[in-house]
Amino acid sequence: MPTFVQILDFIGTFAFAISGIRLASANKFDWFGAYVVGFATAIGGGTIRDVLLNVTPSWMVDPMYLLCTALALFGVIIFGKYLIHLNNTFFLFDSVGLALFTVVGVQKSIALGYPFWVAIIMGCLTGSAGGVIRDVLINEIPLIFGKEIYAMACVVGGIAYWLCYMAGIKSYGCQIIGGMVVLLTRILAVKYHICLPVLNNHEKRS
Amino acid sequence: MPTFVQILDFIGTFAFAISGIRLASANKFDWFGAYVVGFATAIGGGTIRDVLLNVTPSWMVDPMYLLCTALALFGVIIFGKYLIHLNNTFFLFDSVGLALFTVVGVQKSIALGYPFWVAIIMGCLTGSAGGVIRDVLINEIPLIFGKEIYAMACVVGGIAYWLCYMAGIKSYGCQIIGGMVVLLTRILAVKYHICLPVLNNHEKRS
Amino acid sequence: MPTFVQILDFIGTFAFAISGIRLASANKFDWFGAYVVGFATAIGGGTIRDVLLNVTPSWMVDPMYLLCTALALFGVIIFGKYLIHLNNTFFLFDSVGLALFTVVGVQKSIALGYPFWVAIIMGCLTGSAGGVIRDVLINEIPLIFGKEIYAMACVVGGIAYWLCYMAGIKSYGCQIIGGMVVLLTRILAVKYHICLPVLNNHEKRS
Repeated sequence: MPTFVQILDFIGTFAFAISGIRLASANKFDWFGAYVVGFATAIGGGTIRDVLLNVTPSWMVDPMYLLCTALALFGVIIFGKYLIHLNNTFFLFDSVGLALFTVVGVQKSIALGYPFWVAIIMGCLTGSAGGVIRDVLINEIPLIFGKEIYAMACVVGGIAYWLCYMAGIKSYGCQIIGGMVVLLTRILAVKYHICLPVLNNHEKRS
Repeated sequence: MPTFVQILDFIGTFAFAISGIRLASANKFDWFGAYVVGFATAIGGGTIRDVLLNVTPSWMVDPMYLLCTALALFGVIIFGKYLIHLNNTFFLFDSVGLALFTVVGVQKSIALGYPFWVAIIMGCLTGSAGGVIRDVLINEIPLIFGKEIYAMACVVGGIAYWLCYMAGIKSYGCQIIGGMVVLLTRILAVKYHICLPVLNNHEKRS
Repeated sequence: MPTFVQILDFIGTFAFAISGIRLASANKFDWFGAYVVGFATAIGGGTIRDVLLNVTPSWMVDPMYLLCTALALFGVIIFGKYLIHLNNTFFLFDSVGLALFTVVGVQKSIALGYPFWVAIIMGCLTGSAGGVIRDVLINEIPLIFGKEIYAMACVVGGIAYWLCYMAGIKSYGCQIIGGMVVLLTRILAVKYHICLPVLNNHEKRS
């Protein structure tokens, strides 16, 4: 039986794989390239986390991650034409992935005995590093920089998780509340165009 | 005495170092920059593999990799002018490197007790991740995406390796057959312009 | 009480965080994005080193690195306007960071029992990989390639460290001399435009 956190992990994997495959297809990658970008987007953040925490990355133990990405690829191949107009659906997918992965990252780090500030960074990495890898692979400036609140939502959710934990709320509760906070922060930020302040513009590198 | 796999590894290192140094020189990098790009191309895939498999990267135990890259650099410095017209030679070099590294990656993962689907991914990473790092360093969209079959050849070779292994063929035989399959797949793909299908083009990110 | 090497590490972290934050601000990143780029610049090299050496990255054990980066961010936010004209000051900062991090990387690798040629590479990685990550994140060709001597200075400093060590000079002495050599090499290289030779230009990738 998969645990609650594993189920979150699989849904998040599917959601992020779709996001990577879509961008790859916009750049006219072939099926294999799209699969690789989708897979890297889905497992990239978790892999960096697991390497830093010095545990074997989840996808090397469980082939579900490969299958989830394959499923996502077939979905985009078959339903590609209908998916173009579903930007809002995809935005939701991506935000759900962000929320789920943040919770997975925080939970895993705490379970390994790391302090909370490390767990929050790991949640943030799990949620957003996959998207950075995706954007580096397709040679664009990573989306998470300079737009509406994105990775910051992971930090807010991680802090919410921590406060719940401090208040004595059980593991399930912390995960659900933490995830909801990430999701809400992200959705409200995009809906109301909430951005963090931009630094005073300095000169470009000469 | 170096083992058979180590000899494959050194030839592959030399071949990939040359490929990195050539591209660096096309971008007017200095000698040190070219050395770094050549070295990263040569050891990048194997290093990611070793970090994921949680063993010390080979180049940290054996200075041969540094020397191979130095040799490749001197080769390009001295014979640079004559090398320009040898595109076919280089294509063969790169393909040989791809084949050898795939075999090395598959073999190492199996020796560490990983299941075959992990070994195939590791073979693919060993063979192609160095080239991705090279292309990210010189700020181009990685070559392996959207052209003739490249990293897919590693997967085909990895599966061939696995089938041989299942059929009870000895280690040497699996390695030779696996490597030949990678090489043939890559050469045939380029010769007959065999490409994987491209995904239906979607809109660019807005 | 922090050790001598830890103090070097914190000053280097601050110096590199400033360099990352400045470039992020030139690219109009928001505060969070600037913090992430500053943090990645500051801890990137050391993290790659620690993953390769298979020890827990320093910033996961000590929150000082997060605080240093926060301090650097506030500094740039508050004094940003006055900082524009201080290019020479920043050049010095960056060079000091390079020198300190090289020494930290060499020292840590030796303490873990690695041979000197590995320690020199690790010093070079610690000093310069953060800057490469920074440049990949903001989607530019890494600064360390094709300009005045940069990462090469780490190699020169690492060799100086090694010679001192061989000559029986104490740990402190090796660190101070090694660091000074990096700093001087870098400053002299920029002042007198000392560059390594560039490879004969070959054709671009077709």
